[in-house]
Amino acid sequence: TEAGETIRATLFPGDGIGPEIAESVKQVFNVAGVPIEWEEHYVGTEVDPRTESFLTWESLESVRRNKVGLKGPMATPIGKGHRSLNLTLRKELGLYANVRPCNSLPGYKTRYDDVNLVTIRENTEGEYSGLEHQVVRGVVESLKIITRQASLRVAEYAFHYAKANGRERVSAIHKANIMRKTDGLFLKCCREVAEKYPEITYEEVIIDNCCMTLVKNPGTFDVLVMPNLYGDIISDLCAGLIGGLGLTPSCNIGEGGICLAEAVHGSAPDISGMNLANPTALMLSAVMMLRHLGFDDKADRIHNAILQTISEGKYRTADLGGKSSTSDYTKAVCDHI
Amino acid sequence: TEAGETIRATLFPGDGIGPEIAESVKQVFNVAGVPIEWEEHYVGTEVDPRTESFLTWESLESVRRNKVGLKGPMATPIGKGHRSLNLTLRKELGLYANVRPCNSLPGYKTRYDDVNLVTIRENTEGEYSGLEHQVVRGVVESLKIITRQASLRVAEYAFHYAKANGRERVSAIHKANIMRKTDGLFLKCCREVAEKYPEITYEEVIIDNCCMTLVKNPGTFDVLVMPNLYGDIISDLCAGLIGGLGLTPSCNIGEGGICLAEAVHGSAPDISGMNLANPTALMLSAVMMLRHLGFDDKADRIHNAILQTISEGKYRTADLGGKSSTSDYTKAVCDHI
Ligand SMILES: CC(C)[C@H](C(=O)O)[C@@H](O)C(=O)O
Ligand SMILES: CC(C)[C@H](C(=O)O)[C@@H](O)C(=O)O
Repeated sequence: TEAGETIRATLFPGDGIGPEIAESVKQVFNVAGVPIEWEEHYVGTEVDPRTESFLTWESLESVRRNKVGLKGPMATPIGKGHRSLNLTLRKELGLYANVRPCNSLPGYKTRYDDVNLVTIRENTEGEYSGLEHQVVRGVVESLKIITRQASLRVAEYAFHYAKANGRERVSAIHKANIMRKTDGLFLKCCREVAEKYPEITYEEVIIDNCCMTLVKNPGTFDVLVMPNLYGDIISDLCAGLIGGLGLTPSCNIGEGGICLAEAVHGSAPDISGMNLANPTALMLSAVMMLRHLGFDDKADRIHNAILQTISEGKYRTADLGGKSSTSDYTKAVCDHI
Repeated sequence: TEAGETIRATLFPGDGIGPEIAESVKQVFNVAGVPIEWEEHYVGTEVDPRTESFLTWESLESVRRNKVGLKGPMATPIGKGHRSLNLTLRKELGLYANVRPCNSLPGYKTRYDDVNLVTIRENTEGEYSGLEHQVVRGVVESLKIITRQASLRVAEYAFHYAKANGRERVSAIHKANIMRKTDGLFLKCCREVAEKYPEITYEEVIIDNCCMTLVKNPGTFDVLVMPNLYGDIISDLCAGLIGGLGLTPSCNIGEGGICLAEAVHGSAPDISGMNLANPTALMLSAVMMLRHLGFDDKADRIHNAILQTISEGKYRTADLGGKSSTSDYTKAVCDHI
């Protein structure tokens, strides 16, 4: 796709600080000369009966057509009769894998300087089935569903990703000593896929032990693949190791080759519209989108510009202890491109 | 109970390194003049039909009678037709709360020096129900059960503990934004109990956010209370912050006032019998048992002796980077009493 045509991509600026940080991405893409034309879609102001949520049918169609998109934070309005925006996107677009590379940022000091791993989270089932009920008064149950199909799909993606990115090891995270059948099936699927990738080392790590090792020696991990809730927990833990959700990119891989890159932090309504937000996570997510499209050269240039700006430390937003506005930091990144 | 009588307590030395580290505790107790008479029980060599596990009925009866005990690591033998030793103990003794104080050890350097928190884990239900089945081929489900009774009981214990130990805040950890009914009921119970303790600040923290905050700023937490699996994950994460399971004590509170203190690390068969094991976690667990019995004075003396020995750094076992044998380290602790 590096050949001169223009790519159409969907952009969900999202709520709160979303539009400001999306603006930053647009500026950076302009300066880098990325040939992308955005189809912008905002969260609707009323429930669309076709999506049962505040997302419009048209916005979902846009992603399905373009197969590539970028998403800012979306806060689900409170109330009944509609679905969570994030969960609706995952379900409707079949976003089966959430991929989060997590690397220590040179120059931005945390307690860890050796984080270099990728979490790959199953994104559609498990503890997120939504199936719950009261058995009798005071006794409730919720169902965790694991399927062979979704487990194979995410395992395939994890090994494919590891191979394509020169990674050496895939660790499946589980609690199959307790949930023998559900997590057991997940592991069985991972093992089946692992056999097809003899060049990748495969191991299985129990989630409690995994979390302990992550806080002691995150450098021991490479690619981690896991059911939905463990992925939710571990991906945020890993983000914490390198400084938080304001610095970690993610992208969601969906049915039919969809790639929806996403900043997973909140919409920070308290600082919305004040030119204070940190656009780094959305920029880095946009870089993942570029790599997915094969724009590796532009991705590298933007990625390096972000790393350099943060590393130099002159322009940093308040959440990183700096004094820069969103626009000054964005300009600094642009100047480094 | 400081009044001169002898207390009978059950001792499960456990497997692997268990007997060696149990020996260390006995020595330390002797030197400190703790008036405890141990009833020692080993894991059986065959399944006891009355417990459906390798635990003997007599050993469970011993804990029920004494209401206080200390437990080393127990590896469940592999095979069918019997239950996990740890899960059997929890179930049969109604061990509803697992309590783990987690404090940075002065002089033993990790990436964190400001950890001072306590995790309180519901220990009997949730994701550990054991209820799982295959719905159709390739689709399996497991049931997470939350009951009002068990949630109230562990919440009561957490607030009681916080108050008795001069703690200021209790954080309930959950994922009620996804598991609205199960984790929702857990939170509802915590809120009910919180109302009875107006002097304790109560807050609710989503588990992914909790793990991120723990690795960034563990100092923000005080007492954490949570359902079974979250407790399993977070208590090991917290242990990692201060150096691992070899350094963290725990105790289980059970029905009828049972207190079973427990080292939660493994039985380390690779170094078993070699006089290399670290008895610290079991010693610190024994200290928790002493506090439970009201032997605060002896508990303080032993606790300080352990902290001083580790802090001086001259006698440390191999897992802490030292060269001491179990017996030399134990002797050093005894000398500090
Ligand atoms: C907002 C919430 C539903 C979501 C999740 O639990 O998946 C979030 O934590 C995430 O990781 O994207
Ligand atoms: C051994 C295993 C069953 C156990 C658990 O999951 O509870 C362990 O991890 C623990 O925390 O005591």
